[in-house]
Amino acid sequence: MTAPFDVAPLLAPNNPAPAAKWNGFPKYNFIGGHNDAKHVPIDALIEAATSVLKREGASLSTYGLNSGPQGYRPLREFLSKKLKGHAGIDCTADEILMISGSTQALDLINALLLSKGDTVLIEQETYGSAINRLVRMGVNVIGIPLDDEGLRIDVVKEKLAELKARGITAKYIYTIPTVQNPTGGIMGETRRAELLALAREHGTMIFEDECYSDLIWSGERPPSLYAMAKGEGVIHIGSFSKSIAPALRVGYIVAKWEILSRILGLKLDAGSGALEQMVLAEFCTKHFADHVPKLNKALHAKLQTLREALAEQFGTAAEFGDPPGGIYLWIKLPEVVDTQKLAQAALAAGVSINPGPEWSTNKPYARNRLRLCFANPEPETIKEGVAVLAEVCRREFGVPLRSANVEKA
Amino acid sequence: MTAPFDVAPLLAPNNPAPAAKWNGFPKYNFIGGHNDAKHVPIDALIEAATSVLKREGASLSTYGLNSGPQGYRPLREFLSKKLKGHAGIDCTADEILMISGSTQALDLINALLLSKGDTVLIEQETYGSAINRLVRMGVNVIGIPLDDEGLRIDVVKEKLAELKARGITAKYIYTIPTVQNPTGGIMGETRRAELLALAREHGTMIFEDECYSDLIWSGERPPSLYAMAKGEGVIHIGSFSKSIAPALRVGYIVAKWEILSRILGLKLDAGSGALEQMVLAEFCTKHFADHVPKLNKALHAKLQTLREALAEQFGTAAEFGDPPGGIYLWIKLPEVVDTQKLAQAALAAGVSINPGPEWSTNKPYARNRLRLCFANPEPETIKEGVAVLAEVCRREFGVPLRSANVEKA
Repeated sequence: MTAPFDVAPLLAPNNPAPAAKWNGFPKYNFIGGHNDAKHVPIDALIEAATSVLKREGASLSTYGLNSGPQGYRPLREFLSKKLKGHAGIDCTADEILMISGSTQALDLINALLLSKGDTVLIEQETYGSAINRLVRMGVNVIGIPLDDEGLRIDVVKEKLAELKARGITAKYIYTIPTVQNPTGGIMGETRRAELLALAREHGTMIFEDECYSDLIWSGERPPSLYAMAKGEGVIHIGSFSKSIAPALRVGYIVAKWEILSRILGLKLDAGSGALEQMVLAEFCTKHFADHVPKLNKALHAKLQTLREALAEQFGTAAEFGDPPGGIYLWIKLPEVVDTQKLAQAALAAGVSINPGPEWSTNKPYARNRLRLCFANPEPETIKEGVAVLAEVCRREFGVPLRSANVEKA
Repeated sequence: MTAPFDVAPLLAPNNPAPAAKWNGFPKYNFIGGHNDAKHVPIDALIEAATSVLKREGASLSTYGLNSGPQGYRPLREFLSKKLKGHAGIDCTADEILMISGSTQALDLINALLLSKGDTVLIEQETYGSAINRLVRMGVNVIGIPLDDEGLRIDVVKEKLAELKARGITAKYIYTIPTVQNPTGGIMGETRRAELLALAREHGTMIFEDECYSDLIWSGERPPSLYAMAKGEGVIHIGSFSKSIAPALRVGYIVAKWEILSRILGLKLDAGSGALEQMVLAEFCTKHFADHVPKLNKALHAKLQTLREALAEQFGTAAEFGDPPGGIYLWIKLPEVVDTQKLAQAALAAGVSINPGPEWSTNKPYARNRLRLCFANPEPETIKEGVAVLAEVCRREFGVPLRSANVEKA
């Protein structure tokens, strides 16, 4: 009975590669969406957990608490108010579905709309896991290049027209319009209106991902696509991962009931984690409005630390902007650099980075680009990590030239 | 821009029905896996949340805390010890994957092994959502009838032989051997050995679901299939939903690394809820061993209340056993009763029940059967609810005869 069992003949085809054993975080952690450890509001979360469990802890005995499958109602009520003020969205708690992180939204919305062979438009540079999911489903993914204002409308128009000529309706246009991942840009209101009009003309849904939209230094932003369309033809998603803490797996979907009820019919997980929703609702109702600006101040300072360190260590070899928010900097290195090779060599030196091709549908374009997340490492660690990264890059690719930091030495 | 958008042309085929709006729990709630509100250990959970957040709250700033994608390590360490004592499983924390409730295990294991057209064996009466998932995937589901000891081995043998003759290997045999859902039975050790031998002979995996195995009145149970096979050819899953609280969405998968690493490669959710895992680890390490017997005592008493109420209200019209654990009673009513119709009529009277056909692959067999969950309603509510159910059943189907409770009146 205990001889080894060979599972290989039983595996479904096209499984992804097995995961590697996890060996802890690297010393210089610039990947993923990790956030600032000093800004997890620990005391207020303890206070929130204590008060909400005292008051409503017994309701953990029922799936969905006393709120049903859409998730903890006080959290949906909070979101309804917050989204109105922040994103201009006029929706009730009944048009919000709490989910287990925004990744679940990708799976649910893909399940709702997509079959193998379908076509979608996405931003050419975008969330890597969104690209991977679509590729695994066998969906035809059209990447639309970005300019400073986001999706290039001329290319969207051209691609939709090409599809129409072939009798194809793109199932959705996926966009992160408000603090784009990885570029950090914010799409202007005029561009948003043009995008909505085009999508509407072609009968295509807009899938609006606003996971980063709380993290804007100025606090100012255009209305969301969902708001501008009054919810018609748009599904809007968001998350508490970036504004409170990523290990709390709590996100949400906003959609008209006609669509939300279908998504809910696909959500077969017996509800998302209730304790996290309860604690977040209790915390956010009191503290969200104060917490986010403090976090933004810290993140903005870290961004400037990263930009200064890059300028110091890479000189003109690294090109990057000054994003208005978020936790990422998108960087262009000289053509000679292959960031996938750089990522491997850097990891061996304790520096983790996201190479550009993981975050783009245009692999040649992204080959010499990379994404750094500046939210997690402390300022001194950012400086040291960038110095190590520059050293590795110089050793592997000959850039940046040594002079770039000799000047400062 | 705000004219209604018609999503219908964009929907993927074979979507399930949209969900209905949730209207609160019925007065007499006998469905689902809801548990005893009085036995949610609120004070100890508050204490656990406070201590773990004070000590490690800052780690919420990183996905996976400091434990990586397999989930909070102290909880896996607890499980490693608990499973050894309880189920006889000898595994390390590295062979455990924390997940968002055991429903996620169904999706992950199905994704790992199944394609449309594949064949699996399952218990004829089993978890409804497991059946539904398989049917939606287009999998060929063979239901194996149960006797008092569980899966009928003669039928398993016959079905596997038939499949072999057609060149088909069943991808897995899904079983809930230790407090079966819905029948409540516990498979004996000899039957377990026979099942393992048969599965091994045919190169079929065993998918062992132990979501209810903590809830056994005597505290005694046979070793798990995973333990008996030393993990070879078996995937084992469990949950804290039934032992602590269902709204906490925390389950786990135990498997050899060769399999677990592949499952982990399919888990694209950026981790399961960390706060729930942290609080559970802190709570369970101190209190699990004391908590579960207290809960079991309360559940056992509620079971007897339900059995007495059924005997009183239905007389000989309701046939049922005396399950050794769990939260369900599986009941046979006279042939004249259609429990799907009964469920609708009962709900209108405030009583929710799970009709048998939802929990069986053999719809005609299950037509006059139903499942009642006795864990959530208080004893008086159980009595009242059963009286209302009997009244509805009598009105709709003429049974039970009035004399059954007139005697007691």
